[in-house]
Amino acid sequence: MQFHLNGFRPGDPAIAAPSPQAVPHADAIPAEVDVLIVGCGPAGLTLAAQLAAFPDIRTCIVEQKDGPLQLGQADGIACRTMEMFEAFEFSERVLKEACWINEVTFWKPDEGRPGSIVRHGRVQDTEDGLSEFPHVVLNQARVHDFYLDVMRNAPARLEPHYARRLVDVSVDRAAADHPVTVRLERTDPAHAGQQETVKARYVVGCDGARSAVRKSIGLQLVGDSANQAWGVMDVLAVTDFPDIRYKSAVQSAHGNLLVIPREGGYLARLYVEMDKLGEEERVANRGITLEQLVATAQRILQPFTLEVKEVPWWSVYEIGQRICDRYDDVPAGAGGSLPRVFIAGDACHTHSPKAGQGMNFSMQDAFNLGWKLAAVLRGQCAPRLLHTYSAERQVVAQELIDFDREWAKMFSDRAKQAASGDTEGVDPKEFQKYFERHGRFTAGMGTHYKPSVITGEATHQHLATGFVIGTRFHSAPVVRITDARPVHLGHAGKADGRWRLYAFAGASDHMDAHSGVRALCRFLEEAPDSPVRKYTRAGRDVDAVFDLRAVFQQAHRDLAIESMPALLLPRKGRHGLRDYEKVFSPDLRGGADIFDLRGIARRHGALVVVRPDQYIAHVLPLGDHGALADFFSRFMLPARGSSTNTRKQTTT
Amino acid sequence: MQFHLNGFRPGDPAIAAPSPQAVPHADAIPAEVDVLIVGCGPAGLTLAAQLAAFPDIRTCIVEQKDGPLQLGQADGIACRTMEMFEAFEFSERVLKEACWINEVTFWKPDEGRPGSIVRHGRVQDTEDGLSEFPHVVLNQARVHDFYLDVMRNAPARLEPHYARRLVDVSVDRAAADHPVTVRLERTDPAHAGQQETVKARYVVGCDGARSAVRKSIGLQLVGDSANQAWGVMDVLAVTDFPDIRYKSAVQSAHGNLLVIPREGGYLARLYVEMDKLGEEERVANRGITLEQLVATAQRILQPFTLEVKEVPWWSVYEIGQRICDRYDDVPAGAGGSLPRVFIAGDACHTHSPKAGQGMNFSMQDAFNLGWKLAAVLRGQCAPRLLHTYSAERQVVAQELIDFDREWAKMFSDRAKQAASGDTEGVDPKEFQKYFERHGRFTAGMGTHYKPSVITGEATHQHLATGFVIGTRFHSAPVVRITDARPVHLGHAGKADGRWRLYAFAGASDHMDAHSGVRALCRFLEEAPDSPVRKYTRAGRDVDAVFDLRAVFQQAHRDLAIESMPALLLPRKGRHGLRDYEKVFSPDLRGGADIFDLRGIARRHGALVVVRPDQYIAHVLPLGDHGALADFFSRFMLPARGSSTNTRKQTTT
Repeated sequence: MQFHLNGFRPGDPAIAAPSPQAVPHADAIPAEVDVLIVGCGPAGLTLAAQLAAFPDIRTCIVEQKDGPLQLGQADGIACRTMEMFEAFEFSERVLKEACWINEVTFWKPDEGRPGSIVRHGRVQDTEDGLSEFPHVVLNQARVHDFYLDVMRNAPARLEPHYARRLVDVSVDRAAADHPVTVRLERTDPAHAGQQETVKARYVVGCDGARSAVRKSIGLQLVGDSANQAWGVMDVLAVTDFPDIRYKSAVQSAHGNLLVIPREGGYLARLYVEMDKLGEEERVANRGITLEQLVATAQRILQPFTLEVKEVPWWSVYEIGQRICDRYDDVPAGAGGSLPRVFIAGDACHTHSPKAGQGMNFSMQDAFNLGWKLAAVLRGQCAPRLLHTYSAERQVVAQELIDFDREWAKMFSDRAKQAASGDTEGVDPKEFQKYFERHGRFTAGMGTHYKPSVITGEATHQHLATGFVIGTRFHSAPVVRITDARPVHLGHAGKADGRWRLYAFAGASDHMDAHSGVRALCRFLEEAPDSPVRKYTRAGRDVDAVFDLRAVFQQAHRDLAIESMPALLLPRKGRHGLRDYEKVFSPDLRGGADIFDLRGIARRHGALVVVRPDQYIAHVLPLGDHGALADFFSRFMLPARGSSTNTRKQTTT
Repeated sequence: MQFHLNGFRPGDPAIAAPSPQAVPHADAIPAEVDVLIVGCGPAGLTLAAQLAAFPDIRTCIVEQKDGPLQLGQADGIACRTMEMFEAFEFSERVLKEACWINEVTFWKPDEGRPGSIVRHGRVQDTEDGLSEFPHVVLNQARVHDFYLDVMRNAPARLEPHYARRLVDVSVDRAAADHPVTVRLERTDPAHAGQQETVKARYVVGCDGARSAVRKSIGLQLVGDSANQAWGVMDVLAVTDFPDIRYKSAVQSAHGNLLVIPREGGYLARLYVEMDKLGEEERVANRGITLEQLVATAQRILQPFTLEVKEVPWWSVYEIGQRICDRYDDVPAGAGGSLPRVFIAGDACHTHSPKAGQGMNFSMQDAFNLGWKLAAVLRGQCAPRLLHTYSAERQVVAQELIDFDREWAKMFSDRAKQAASGDTEGVDPKEFQKYFERHGRFTAGMGTHYKPSVITGEATHQHLATGFVIGTRFHSAPVVRITDARPVHLGHAGKADGRWRLYAFAGASDHMDAHSGVRALCRFLEEAPDSPVRKYTRAGRDVDAVFDLRAVFQQAHRDLAIESMPALLLPRKGRHGLRDYEKVFSPDLRGGADIFDLRGIARRHGALVVVRPDQYIAHVLPLGDHGALADFFSRFMLPARGSSTNTRKQTTT
């Protein structure tokens, strides 16, 4: 954490100084905002937390419920999501409170006693080195709490407006500004029935599977259901099933069950396979009771006992995967039209809960959209950037849905019994293999954006084979040379809307004043087409838009701070203090060197360009300054007052 | 973290359910309390946080200042202190916010240009494996904030009473109960001059070097001063001194200086050697100014520049080490008399700030006293236990003072210059060696309690050579067998007043129903002289007083949970839920096995008994049940309603 840059401030550094532009939270909704977010679920709160970082953006978030969530339905937090939480500065709170999923065990019918189950396999949950974070499980309501803290402590001091039902959304494309009008109705007893109208530049529907925003722009979820009822219950129970604190996939002669251990050491979630449904039959009509869930779970877990003491939450559902074919209000084929209304999260896609993807994927939708909205509203990027949101997220959601369908189907299949000559059903070994093969997907690492205006072609991918363009920046351990502190390089990537330029130096770079890193710094500081000069407003810190970090191949004791280029020790803030957190060496304590771990070409190094949402936008030779300048000129707008601003600022 | 044991509770699990006995914080001080703590410094707050964990103890803490500290003087946090913060559940907050001290660099006069300094050495700050925590630096005020959160969130919901000046303390040893009477005067404008009287069972003076409580029991600090003035300033500065983010010891021709980098990445603390003082001369009379401090620092750091932009805090002081010969109100030789008034922290001992010990040592005083007061007040131990506080802490403070004196002297000595044939002064290489040799002391690991009623003899020390009786329990990585989670064994030791019994199993223990760990469990569960049976109140959880944890030598996949003794999977709380966090395997991922790391006798294992303040009380053979029973019978009292209570409860 960096703080005290503009003078010593006592107290909690996580509480930012309030922005002079911050509007104190009032009971009534403001009449005009930049962004209106509908829905305080994981997607809505991720987006709100992201936008709250920018005091110059007026955001409002509304929620139909009358207060913060107390008990959520989602609980799985993928490694990729933890990496994003690190960007929002609360990963350590989740690590402390959550249950860690370390291994998964597999159970099948005992061939000798088919009514009983027996363990037949166990695997590590997440492959080694996939992420610096574990896969964890925590009540969704706590994730909401952490986001609410981020919003509350941000310069914008953002708080939700609860008890608001969306009435309608309309877009006046001819309007000069704030073209979206949203009508809301208050639902709390004191104001019931009161209507409010808010005008917004952009509206984002994070209002769940039955999204009213989605309906207002004429979109719908399309998909199918597997006609299979499942029950889910959070239990405090006493059992002699030995793997109650492991994620356990149980295939039994009486149906299937999934155990998810939960936070706090005592709670567990059980997913229980219930009835096959008829065509078009809805699970709600079955009238499945909690008692039936418990009895089925007890039957499946035989010969082990399960004595349920308390059930804080339970539900029944049918498996289904549905998805929307686009995520904004631009009609298909209407390429010239700019989006004004977006949807994110469950409003766009719904999954089987057991893949643990719904909440994770929803938050990634919002993280993808957040920086883009901010960049457009702040005049950094042209509004056509916003097309990339639907284009990127819809495709990866479709891939996830396909995975999820297969996974859910396997989960509802009977376990094949070799001894009884079964040909139907799924082989338990196959089931375990499928699980292992798809570990990256469940860890949230399945996302791979295709080349686009903001994602470069793989021309120079060989310079950094472990930083795959279009995938998330995979962190690795390094040592900060200015203080010898071991840190994770990727943790430089905070949710602050900035781009990261990671310059990996060539082998002899540190000794050569005309070499890769130094030449890059000179280009960025001096060249007329330097992105730093072109896109950073006059008077702002030199790293306000592009945060350059360098990693050298030498040990930190072999590098002299005093010989580093000024751009790597930049002077910032009102005192012009030096920032000492930009230069790194490999950390060999864990055994592996980041240059080897990520396949960096040692001779000449590489430049890895990372988006504000932690995805790799490009890999370039350190010396290809022209390609770097070209890349950003595709979507960025010269800054007002920048030293190279030659054209008029486009309005948003 | 374990929670939801007695039913699901939404919200932040760090906020305990309020105790029905908790007294809401009122403006006025209660008339009668169990413990009155005078002073909200590091010692007072550690003690208050410890006592707040026990809702049946009424604690009151008063402070002369009118509110929480905003800017503290102390900043160094030793590894040992971080281990204690882990027990109070806020180590992760400190790790996130603090500056980490990773290496120390050493500077001396440049032999070629004696007016200039040159780096001559660098060492790792903390030796590998000394602690799982780093040495860090953070404004004392933030440590206060974290303790205040612990107090506020504890069952007792404890808040300080500010703006209270101590008038006097009197003890009526004939009184049946609450023998200490304390008079206070309110100092805030609204109540200025109002007197309050509070009666207490115990009073603890944590009121600093000028302690009024200490004076009231007729004790004084004795020691000497080195007649050397030093200045200290926290600065936001621009410098080309390359090691401004390292702890740097600078010996120059113009005097000595110490750089301590601070939290947030920009702030640094400089200790600057100023004038030699005359005999009996006080530094206050010198009228040293901030400008003089800055000018001296600039001179010492030549040829580097130092441009000071902001000074949030500065001070001048003279080096001195002073100590009190006892820490309670029992007159020397009056062995029969029981202590009622204690002092802790700076009230007992003062140091040179540069060894970074004052705050750390003060908090350890309070951690030592806290569990003892709680155990006596709750009827677990006889009051004579309280004698061990002064006996233990005064001795280790004297050792620290001796170290500190030598260290401070070295720091004020001229650097010896070999080239100029100096015979006076300290050799820079010697200085660095001394620093390295005393790394354990500065890390807070110098404390080694002598055998006493609560510290066993080293008869069986060979069974666990790395767990030295009388030193703090040195944690090591293990894997929890019930969920394969890698954890630190020592982090089981929370500040909850409980004893930990770590049973390290013999090599074939897991296969033998009559072996070490199983036999120990049977003894603890069934024997009439079992400490668990004797000292645990009826109706309380079986681990309420003794928290037994077992470490087996086999990998977690080779151990069957279902074959573990019931005491290692105990049923607890109102639902009788199983606690799954008691059994461990070595964690080999980091390369080392806890049995090797800590020198555990592999054949038969060992039992390591750890006090509530994390110090090792005893090492015993697993099978020596009699010795275990004897040890606790020396100072514990049979519990009311315990199954083996044979004598009447002694009142406290």
